[in-house]
Amino acid sequence: MRCQMLRDARFRALLSMRLSEFAMPTPPHINCERLIDRLATFNRIGALPGGGNCRLALSDEDHAGRDLLVRWMDELGLAVTVDAIGNIIGARSGREDIAPVMFGSHVDTVGTGGRYDGLYGVLAGLELCEALGEAGATTRRPLALVAFTNEEGSRFAPYAMGSLVYAGGTALEAAYAVRGIDGKTVGEELKRIGYAGAANPGWLKPYAYLELHIEQGPILEDEGLVIGAVEGITGLIWTEITVTGRAAHAGTTPIHLRRDAAYVAGEIVAFLRRLAHGLGGHQRCTAGRIELYPNLVNVIAERAVLTVDLRNTDATQLQAAQRELAACLDRLAAQENVTIATRSLARFEPVAFPDEIVSLVEATARELGLSCRRLPSGAGHDAQMMARLCPSGMIFVPSVGGLSHNVREETKPEHLHAGAEVLLNAVLKLAA
Amino acid sequence: MRCQMLRDARFRALLSMRLSEFAMPTPPHINCERLIDRLATFNRIGALPGGGNCRLALSDEDHAGRDLLVRWMDELGLAVTVDAIGNIIGARSGREDIAPVMFGSHVDTVGTGGRYDGLYGVLAGLELCEALGEAGATTRRPLALVAFTNEEGSRFAPYAMGSLVYAGGTALEAAYAVRGIDGKTVGEELKRIGYAGAANPGWLKPYAYLELHIEQGPILEDEGLVIGAVEGITGLIWTEITVTGRAAHAGTTPIHLRRDAAYVAGEIVAFLRRLAHGLGGHQRCTAGRIELYPNLVNVIAERAVLTVDLRNTDATQLQAAQRELAACLDRLAAQENVTIATRSLARFEPVAFPDEIVSLVEATARELGLSCRRLPSGAGHDAQMMARLCPSGMIFVPSVGGLSHNVREETKPEHLHAGAEVLLNAVLKLAA
Repeated sequence: MRCQMLRDARFRALLSMRLSEFAMPTPPHINCERLIDRLATFNRIGALPGGGNCRLALSDEDHAGRDLLVRWMDELGLAVTVDAIGNIIGARSGREDIAPVMFGSHVDTVGTGGRYDGLYGVLAGLELCEALGEAGATTRRPLALVAFTNEEGSRFAPYAMGSLVYAGGTALEAAYAVRGIDGKTVGEELKRIGYAGAANPGWLKPYAYLELHIEQGPILEDEGLVIGAVEGITGLIWTEITVTGRAAHAGTTPIHLRRDAAYVAGEIVAFLRRLAHGLGGHQRCTAGRIELYPNLVNVIAERAVLTVDLRNTDATQLQAAQRELAACLDRLAAQENVTIATRSLARFEPVAFPDEIVSLVEATARELGLSCRRLPSGAGHDAQMMARLCPSGMIFVPSVGGLSHNVREETKPEHLHAGAEVLLNAVLKLAA
Repeated sequence: MRCQMLRDARFRALLSMRLSEFAMPTPPHINCERLIDRLATFNRIGALPGGGNCRLALSDEDHAGRDLLVRWMDELGLAVTVDAIGNIIGARSGREDIAPVMFGSHVDTVGTGGRYDGLYGVLAGLELCEALGEAGATTRRPLALVAFTNEEGSRFAPYAMGSLVYAGGTALEAAYAVRGIDGKTVGEELKRIGYAGAANPGWLKPYAYLELHIEQGPILEDEGLVIGAVEGITGLIWTEITVTGRAAHAGTTPIHLRRDAAYVAGEIVAFLRRLAHGLGGHQRCTAGRIELYPNLVNVIAERAVLTVDLRNTDATQLQAAQRELAACLDRLAAQENVTIATRSLARFEPVAFPDEIVSLVEATARELGLSCRRLPSGAGHDAQMMARLCPSGMIFVPSVGGLSHNVREETKPEHLHAGAEVLLNAVLKLAA
């Protein structure tokens, strides 16, 4: 995909294109109040009493949200198509009937979701279409606004199911058969809410895909920046580690005769920090879960179970991290006379977005006078799956306190505005 | 107490006394088969289906065990007295009516107790009396075999309650008022089983107290030794540590912006090992309990609660360990931007047994041709409380695999025999 794009002389030209070069009667601009109003209206659906939202995929709340989105698409004159996995695409014609520029995200949430995770990217895309209409602007390429099915994966695994099926990463039948946490299947629930569409997922092959999203992390806020040009989606290795030692009396057992599973767990956790520092860059290492048995103040632990979450945008680095962890476990097992067993919980290869798209986002932000940096995404997104199908990329805006998947998730209005302007102008460049 | 003993010329002379110097018609000897038979008979009371015993203090099983002990004391002609806290003392007259040599231990167990923890010291004392009787031997000082109430503390806290009250460490009324895990009080239960005796605890002030016990740790077995001459009971500080950081996304939060409670907990656990090595000697450091919140693979922990068990036979070293731990917590709190709160769960000062008693045990073992080393006790015992009242000491025999408070607790018959012989001969020296 990347090579194909590099061969496209028009695309290379985009990188040097100035915003002023768009010949449009009135320059289109994002109406931030309208965008925020639409976000607020949509978020009445599935609103939680203490703030935040719950619109689990294919639930009644998701259904109501989809209906509202389709109505708004209709009102703006977009041609709405629902595919067989429930992805909703609203198309806007271009001057030529060629591959469209696609943008969007998702409208489902986790159980205790925030107001902007996913929804912001979809409704900013809708605002983009309305702004173009107001300006009387047309684009050479068609535009396609998409809301992918079940990005969160909270009800049905895996996450990003709609985009994964769209990109051909899994078969429709396999996705239909997935049973959710409430025992119902994706296929049943899609039919129940009337969103098992006729179109074949992947029916519309985009020229490029761009996704605007909240960062869900603290980097932009910490550095006082407005825009993140996302370089890629991190790869991920989840491992469950079980350390088995020997329970013994904390008072009577000398240190050198201990086979202390809790001590080994502590050393693994401390090692992870050194591993992250050693590999540097984008390496993340987290031990989020630790359980000891028998877990008593005066008993040396017989067994420790802990999880390690390793992430890196660089596949080689990620493999190096896994190798170093394995060597650490071997060393500790020998040194502490314990047995250490590992179980793989998950593994996803990293995705690197094409530099052309990353540079486009960066250049567009700079031309709009917005501070910007390149950064990787530590969380998964639909763009990760769409990268299999076409050149893809993402635009991040800051999350207050880095909070996400939390009802306290927040993004400032000026940042919502800035991100939508970058999306608008980057899409115009891609569609030119 | 110690100074008083040193002034006693007779006691100093004990250290150079040879076993051969006891002028007795027939040298008394432990009948090991009889001892083991008695242990087995007693352990039918409260036997657990898979092995081991449950005779929680003042339960029906403890009651049955006490009745059997009193019957056996009666049969051997010992004068039985039960005091108000339920301690049972069987006295054997000496040639002079002076302060007796006391020995014994306890017959209660933890919920999943072994066969010899406590009971061995009491029944070896009974065997000692029978052996003296068979040999037609009298001693200058009277002898007093004791079974203290509620040493384990599993049902009623604190542990070693009977000896603590006996030594004047806590008031009888306070002990009576203690409510157990089943809601009943010590006073009620003592009366219910008929063991709230008339005598004042401490009524009989011993010349010295000697306790034979299983080691409950692995040192003797590890070094292939038979006898431990216990130098003292370790001091103990139990601290609960609560680390509060900030929950965050494991994928999106860079290492330098984390406030990771799990990482801090891991560093504390790793520090404890360095602390133990740094202080060396008898310092023990254990983190036996760790709990994380929310305890999920992909969430940086908001909170960690862990316990630290510090023990040392040297009070100065123990305080140093506590200071170094506090400094470590301060350092981690500042460095990792977390708050760390501590709560004291328990604190007992170390007890050092008088060197005269330790040397006596050591010399006696050596004269009997038994390998021996000095060692501290990492677990609490009745001798710890009796040391407030009179010169006290302990004799340890090996525990197979160092196991204790476990139904798989075991001590080899030849070690049971050896320990009882050392007790017999050390008591004879003290009583001479």
